[in-house]
Amino acid sequence: MILRKILMSSNICGNTKQLLPIMCNFVRYKSSEVEKSQRTSYAKQQTTIFDKIIAKEIPSDIIYEDDKCLAFNDVNPQAPVHFLVIPKRRIPMLDDISDNDRDILGELIIRAQQLAKERLPNGYRLVINNGKQGCQSVYHLHIHILGGRQLTWPPG
Amino acid sequence: MILRKILMSSNICGNTKQLLPIMCNFVRYKSSEVEKSQRTSYAKQQTTIFDKIIAKEIPSDIIYEDDKCLAFNDVNPQAPVHFLVIPKRRIPMLDDISDNDRDILGELIIRAQQLAKERLPNGYRLVINNGKQGCQSVYHLHIHILGGRQLTWPPG
Repeated sequence: MILRKILMSSNICGNTKQLLPIMCNFVRYKSSEVEKSQRTSYAKQQTTIFDKIIAKEIPSDIIYEDDKCLAFNDVNPQAPVHFLVIPKRRIPMLDDISDNDRDILGELIIRAQQLAKERLPNGYRLVINNGKQGCQSVYHLHIHILGGRQLTWPPG
Repeated sequence: MILRKILMSSNICGNTKQLLPIMCNFVRYKSSEVEKSQRTSYAKQQTTIFDKIIAKEIPSDIIYEDDKCLAFNDVNPQAPVHFLVIPKRRIPMLDDISDNDRDILGELIIRAQQLAKERLPNGYRLVINNGKQGCQSVYHLHIHILGGRQLTWPPG
């Protein structure tokens, strides 16, 4: 809010208005998603909310499902289209994968690409967070797919 | 610079100083990497700079190489550690992959993870850009791996 006020009251350059919502978003999520990732850890999460989503114990907006993976819209979207692709078998984080996981990793990326290509003809970004500095808040491996707006650089 | 001046002259909150370099980075790269991705396209890039890096026709800071893939430090790093993993066989973009590419995709992710785990014990982020809105500027599939600082949310 403070940043919004300053930028609104200053008449500095033409693209301030364009940058404003992105910057306010940035500040808001810095104080929520990042902090959440700092409070949690692998050890604390024996099971995660994704286990409940897979078991249909809590509702989610599922867009694809097969025996190996599940895709559903992010509950806190960061772009007009923002969904997750996860393996049904729990792999807590990317750090845990081994050579034996080659098939499921290839499968997840192909599934993410197929779902993205149908929905996002102008482009998209795939993101995998690992650990605290990677901003991982749920310790069940997941791929974020974001699109429907111009993604910026750096990627967080 | 304008944004920097405004934030410097305002004494609004404790974490302004912390946010300042990140925001200035954001503004700078919005006007370079994003614009570059808007000017280029798949059709324009019959070959890319990565072909020359693979062929050792131009120098790069290679950190890993085998017969299928190559990893090298990003020439324009967005974090203290920022490297790319690419397949030697050119796949222009994620939109081009098929079921036959499952193995190479799994291979690339495993390689990215192994290199990241050695270098970034506190966490990291994997990013794949696809097309204009995904901010893809080189049409040779590549995975960005970033770490060594707290990654923020949203991821661009």
